[in-house]
Amino acid sequence: MTALSPLAPAAFPTMPIVAGVRLAGHECGIRYSGRPDLLMVELAPGSTVAGVFTRSLTCSAPVVWCRQAAAKGKARVVVVNSGNANAFTGAAGMASVERTVAKAAEVVGCKKSEVFVASTGTIGVPLPDEKITAHLDAVRGKLEAESWDAAARAIMTTDTFAKGATRTAVIDGTTVTINGIAKGAGMIAPDMATMLAFVFTDAALPGEVLQPLLVKGADKSFNCITVDSDTSTSDTLLLFATGLAGNCRIDDAKDKRLADFKAKLNDLLLDLALQVVKDGEGATKFVEVRVTGAAGNRAARRIGLAIANSPLVKTAIAGEDANWGRIVMAVGKAGERADRDRLAISIGGVVVAKDGQVVPGYDEAPVNAHMKGSDIVIEVDIGLGKGKATVWTCDLTHAYIDINGSYRT
Amino acid sequence: MTALSPLAPAAFPTMPIVAGVRLAGHECGIRYSGRPDLLMVELAPGSTVAGVFTRSLTCSAPVVWCRQAAAKGKARVVVVNSGNANAFTGAAGMASVERTVAKAAEVVGCKKSEVFVASTGTIGVPLPDEKITAHLDAVRGKLEAESWDAAARAIMTTDTFAKGATRTAVIDGTTVTINGIAKGAGMIAPDMATMLAFVFTDAALPGEVLQPLLVKGADKSFNCITVDSDTSTSDTLLLFATGLAGNCRIDDAKDKRLADFKAKLNDLLLDLALQVVKDGEGATKFVEVRVTGAAGNRAARRIGLAIANSPLVKTAIAGEDANWGRIVMAVGKAGERADRDRLAISIGGVVVAKDGQVVPGYDEAPVNAHMKGSDIVIEVDIGLGKGKATVWTCDLTHAYIDINGSYRT
Repeated sequence: MTALSPLAPAAFPTMPIVAGVRLAGHECGIRYSGRPDLLMVELAPGSTVAGVFTRSLTCSAPVVWCRQAAAKGKARVVVVNSGNANAFTGAAGMASVERTVAKAAEVVGCKKSEVFVASTGTIGVPLPDEKITAHLDAVRGKLEAESWDAAARAIMTTDTFAKGATRTAVIDGTTVTINGIAKGAGMIAPDMATMLAFVFTDAALPGEVLQPLLVKGADKSFNCITVDSDTSTSDTLLLFATGLAGNCRIDDAKDKRLADFKAKLNDLLLDLALQVVKDGEGATKFVEVRVTGAAGNRAARRIGLAIANSPLVKTAIAGEDANWGRIVMAVGKAGERADRDRLAISIGGVVVAKDGQVVPGYDEAPVNAHMKGSDIVIEVDIGLGKGKATVWTCDLTHAYIDINGSYRT
Repeated sequence: MTALSPLAPAAFPTMPIVAGVRLAGHECGIRYSGRPDLLMVELAPGSTVAGVFTRSLTCSAPVVWCRQAAAKGKARVVVVNSGNANAFTGAAGMASVERTVAKAAEVVGCKKSEVFVASTGTIGVPLPDEKITAHLDAVRGKLEAESWDAAARAIMTTDTFAKGATRTAVIDGTTVTINGIAKGAGMIAPDMATMLAFVFTDAALPGEVLQPLLVKGADKSFNCITVDSDTSTSDTLLLFATGLAGNCRIDDAKDKRLADFKAKLNDLLLDLALQVVKDGEGATKFVEVRVTGAAGNRAARRIGLAIANSPLVKTAIAGEDANWGRIVMAVGKAGERADRDRLAISIGGVVVAKDGQVVPGYDEAPVNAHMKGSDIVIEVDIGLGKGKATVWTCDLTHAYIDINGSYRT
């Protein structure tokens, strides 16, 4: 195992129960031994679901399944394994999903379309689904409402810490709970693998309402983080709602009574996403890139991601070098409107360059001091419009190369 | 200085003279000391020119100048400095270019629009152009037809070897010579910097004929290489023709009598481009990615570049790991049409996966042996159409991080 990320939070959060959600981690020996590699979650009858998935055109068999099932909007059980991604496994991979789904539906007593599966780990190796199906009866007997920490641990691969977050929100006077767990050492561990996140609430909301909320929340969180620009075949974000909080019926995602729920959901999704960045392979610095003044918000995000994905920017940060020239370069390659002579750049709150050149009498000392910290803030104003976006990443270090140059061998 | 790239050629090639071209390197102390940092090339009256430049929207002042000058099609003198890129230097940067151009035009006795300038090195620092202009008279006195090696050395920054190539071609019975020099340790050295390439021929061809030939040649060479996906603010490729070979007049780039010239020019451009890859910062492996069966040639190149730019693919190659799963991932993120279940992948000529899964009885031994060599060949067949492309890159190693994490400090 890799050493704990220096950016890890002090501890896993204390998570309350979510009415209608019971979880268990289990050791079924898919690849790892001596650690849990199977997660089962059972949801109360009538639970609803929404999903956001990888845009990869070579996505894994479980993603193909979940995309179809989520469209039906109902959920009763979630089965997740680590150690094997069931990706690029052809027809055999789909057959593995179908056997796992059939068994889980039988064990819980639900429709197959109410079963959600996810797999993370090595790709191109057939999934030994018999190891999963043989254990589902036993795991069901272990389900508990309190097992959030164990659940988060069961889905880890090269993650160095378990990731969880919780929030409460009020919907028209009724308090609801939202809990989430995630895994992903930067979308990339272990073989390349996966960001998985599962969010559970006791709010009563139909799938058609959950879906736009989740899409919007993902757009400001998971879609604004990057470790190495590589897109997983398996990225999966699912939001489940058991309805047991008994709030009033809401049929429209734009209903104003959802304002607090939306805010807390977005906050929880961002919390989980930033934990993924803080566990980025080899990360020693957490980097926030704020772009303002772009032609539009979409342009701002593309510029932000061009900066956050640039190996030259990321290695400079690892080297604690306030190399603003590389930030200029990244703005120039983003493919969005930019005017060299209007660009302004600040690092750690200190204006480094504006109007296309370094500021007169630029004093590097406070900027160098900022670069030595673990939280780096880069602000770029494009000077053209009102578009803005914030993206997050980590630095590119020797440890990234160690982890990824030698994982399989 | 960094150690010589293990992928460097045995020696700088023996370059013949090109009638009407005289060159000199000179030490003018812009940033480095004890090594040449200024190149001057004088061309015979009547010389023509074509140019291809960076697509960066934050391009350097010299690029702005050359783009305008090249459109006029005539050239008499080239002035290149290393040590300072004159990029992101605002109005002062453009003034530096204008003073340098004015002095060079005066020294040689030509129009300003016949002067071409390029700068490579640190960005954001005002160019001390007085160090250049003060030496132009002296450098002109040193010009010689044989100084190709010295010329290639004068434009180096973090390059570990000087890059040159030469070819002869026949145009309608007349033999012409083409010489080229280039610099660039992966478009990225020293601060981020630059790929510069200058090609000279004694062929008699107008600028309107040279331009489409150069665009096409760049498309199959410099536009098919990548070290780290970062786009320089300063990339410049110029082709000059003195006309002294006295070949017949040709006014159309599609004239069949240009077939051999085109082939040799393309071959020379590819030779220079591959030398740049072989000097990629920290490179220990030279990687050729051949994509076939894509929806079109453009799609094939985008898929090839997605593979070649993937940090996960590049670190796996550095680790001598035949990690084909990461190649699948990169195909999936390229944004071009792909069908997971039609994909075939070969490494070192050995079929690893086809029809969406690893081949039955896959024997990793010969593939592992191939990965230990210095020349790695990856073939990907998308299985959809007839589009094809080849791109070249290098691996991503600890040395890349060392070089880029500590360059300025």
